[in-house]
Amino acid sequence: MPQRLAVIGGNPAGMSAASVAKRRDPDLEIVAFERGPYTSYAACGIPYLIGGDIKEVDDLVARSPDEHRRNGIDVRTRTEVVAIDLAARTLTARDEHTREETTEPFDQLLIATGAHATPPPIPGAEATEPARTLDAAEKLRAEVARHGDHAVVIGAGYIGLEMAENLVQRGMHVTMVDRAPQVMGTLDPDIAEHVQDAAEGHGVKVLLNVDITEIVRDDAGRPTLVRTREGDLQADHVVIGTGARPDVELASAAGLTVGETGALVVDDHLRVPGHDGVFAAGDCVESHHRILDAPVNIQLGTHANQQGRIAGLNIAGGDARFPGVLGTAISRICRYEVARTGLTEREAADAGIDAVAITTKARTRAEYYPGAGPIWVKLVAERGGGRLLGGQIVGTETAGKRIDTIATALWAGMTADDLQFVDLAYAPPVSPVRDPVLVAARALAGR
Amino acid sequence: MPQRLAVIGGNPAGMSAASVAKRRDPDLEIVAFERGPYTSYAACGIPYLIGGDIKEVDDLVARSPDEHRRNGIDVRTRTEVVAIDLAARTLTARDEHTREETTEPFDQLLIATGAHATPPPIPGAEATEPARTLDAAEKLRAEVARHGDHAVVIGAGYIGLEMAENLVQRGMHVTMVDRAPQVMGTLDPDIAEHVQDAAEGHGVKVLLNVDITEIVRDDAGRPTLVRTREGDLQADHVVIGTGARPDVELASAAGLTVGETGALVVDDHLRVPGHDGVFAAGDCVESHHRILDAPVNIQLGTHANQQGRIAGLNIAGGDARFPGVLGTAISRICRYEVARTGLTEREAADAGIDAVAITTKARTRAEYYPGAGPIWVKLVAERGGGRLLGGQIVGTETAGKRIDTIATALWAGMTADDLQFVDLAYAPPVSPVRDPVLVAARALAGR
Repeated sequence: MPQRLAVIGGNPAGMSAASVAKRRDPDLEIVAFERGPYTSYAACGIPYLIGGDIKEVDDLVARSPDEHRRNGIDVRTRTEVVAIDLAARTLTARDEHTREETTEPFDQLLIATGAHATPPPIPGAEATEPARTLDAAEKLRAEVARHGDHAVVIGAGYIGLEMAENLVQRGMHVTMVDRAPQVMGTLDPDIAEHVQDAAEGHGVKVLLNVDITEIVRDDAGRPTLVRTREGDLQADHVVIGTGARPDVELASAAGLTVGETGALVVDDHLRVPGHDGVFAAGDCVESHHRILDAPVNIQLGTHANQQGRIAGLNIAGGDARFPGVLGTAISRICRYEVARTGLTEREAADAGIDAVAITTKARTRAEYYPGAGPIWVKLVAERGGGRLLGGQIVGTETAGKRIDTIATALWAGMTADDLQFVDLAYAPPVSPVRDPVLVAARALAGR
Repeated sequence: MPQRLAVIGGNPAGMSAASVAKRRDPDLEIVAFERGPYTSYAACGIPYLIGGDIKEVDDLVARSPDEHRRNGIDVRTRTEVVAIDLAARTLTARDEHTREETTEPFDQLLIATGAHATPPPIPGAEATEPARTLDAAEKLRAEVARHGDHAVVIGAGYIGLEMAENLVQRGMHVTMVDRAPQVMGTLDPDIAEHVQDAAEGHGVKVLLNVDITEIVRDDAGRPTLVRTREGDLQADHVVIGTGARPDVELASAAGLTVGETGALVVDDHLRVPGHDGVFAAGDCVESHHRILDAPVNIQLGTHANQQGRIAGLNIAGGDARFPGVLGTAISRICRYEVARTGLTEREAADAGIDAVAITTKARTRAEYYPGAGPIWVKLVAERGGGRLLGGQIVGTETAGKRIDTIATALWAGMTADDLQFVDLAYAPPVSPVRDPVLVAARALAGR
């Protein structure tokens, strides 16, 4: 009798696990449950769907439910798992339309429930559907095309910024509001400042240190105004980008452990400790942070993708290990690319690490070459030993992916002194003779 | 009495050494001799000066002789050093105009004589001035503007290719000829093939496996025809890009050791062994190759720049070490960027290393994102242990600098298995969710 795997979540983590497991063990019977109508889509592409760089919703779907079915995976869309019984090895799934519930047996279980947006505690906010899913994005796109041209984006993180940029591209007047004193709280203020410049240069009105008191709606439930302590903002559309929390309610109710980060505890094989045959992967789990040497919940498609694959290998009898994360992330915000890896200066301080940091400014190409633009590189290292702890980059086109050089150095445990000499590539159209990363490493090594 | 440093060569290696030494020890008296009229210029920018992306010769000059003089360095341009007497601690310098020779004393000496182009052994080739210097580039640019529209580029290395591309950009009909069976002999054939595609797509006619027998000139000495075994090529202009040899005659005549690579032997402090106070840096010296663990002569601006700085620190009493090279290089050839680091598959075989290699094709951005283009990544690793030996990349814009990730991994001694998990940055406008480098590393780790 073949084993049966149940996957909860049709996102990239869940479906890549299912695909890898099926490829490795074709006898494995796999059923996957997804609340929405789509599977395996790139949520990171949603802002560009709103802005029009991406034309079709289907462009973001890497593999549709039917494609998965052709690969032998029984995908149930618009079906929510409402309970897990680990003792009985069953789960309860509810069909969105019929509301009918069925009991599904499993031998192995993969929890890939992802994360859900956390609306701010503002009257009227709960009625705003966050544009985190493809169906929500479709609705927002249609709304933007039909009604009014004033949008308010709540939350100045990278998703808020990407949405703001793309709404401007659609001809909207966009105001972005955040309670914090800076955009992108995941960056140090001196780097975030350049991102704010870029957003403002693109036409986004950025309001910081501003509390929102209410989202006012008309009788049809459509937003009209965002009230703040500094005055009212016209708001035909409201977009919420105030972060997301791991979706652990279901797993927690079933008795699985939620760590201090608010995400599910898994081991380095993506197994849920103490529950044979139960795996979890993606935005809903904790990962080991290689610099902090502590669990973190960082929601990134890259981690979800790697974890899904590793969970899939292990589900099918493999022995693959997920070696942890650095939290490397990148975003294009208007004229700048912005990226980070490891710890910021603030995060290092919060972790009680005695760190030294430096920010250097350079050019993305040879000074004399057309298209050269500014790039700021910030490096953080342990005082004394000089072990690199993190890096941040902001600058014009091609600046951002230089973060990979720093991430690789962090991964290998290099010091600033090691990094300053690495033999990096130079040609006038792509870099100055001393790459901006080397400039920063040298400056830091000098300290 | 202050010490006196003599620098032979006004190129970036020589002048960055001089500048660093002067900054560290302002009492040091420095005299620098340069054959040509310019100092500290970016020879790598010359093709773009020919093509017109760079408008002014001065744009390529990082620091003019007068600027160096204002920093207290006595620069003598159009002055050739014709002899060194290490016993007497003097050198003989000849003024280009007056032909007058003077004897110059020194306490310390830096040899930064660079490299000179090696014309192919073809009748008529010796009369073609290679466009390696700014003054030669100026002449070529003027010639191209004035006469005929057919150019023949001899040598299909990266300089030949960059020149060919830029001559096409100037409206020339360009034929590139090489005796070798592939373009860019510094790459493996499967990668070089894509570079050839790019050149041909841009309008360069590429003739491989073709021997040139003569460059025919008119009475004024201007080229008219390039004769090959396959027929004659109209040639109003001939550009030679058949490589360069370290300029060691002067140093060799003074008794310094030339290694098997044809370049000067130096230690890891850029000191010439056995000769106190004598340093050498840049294209004329051997470097330690970190993967081969052997001396190499690889002529790159990046190495020259780092070596110059380290020589300068040590000249001024410092204790800085040059940790060796990987030979990381990049070039933009028409629609592609092409880059390499470490060893190619062929070089690993030539070195007697049992290696395994893989080439994977991916996209530079998310599949659905506008502007995504192809990228091929080739990785070479030791069979068995899996230690990375080298990488090559070719692909559209932003492909090339991904070589830095591989270079950093090589620098740290990582294996393909290590590299496949490194937490690299992803956002749809800049990368697929799995970076192309990770795709290649995973494929190689699987072998």
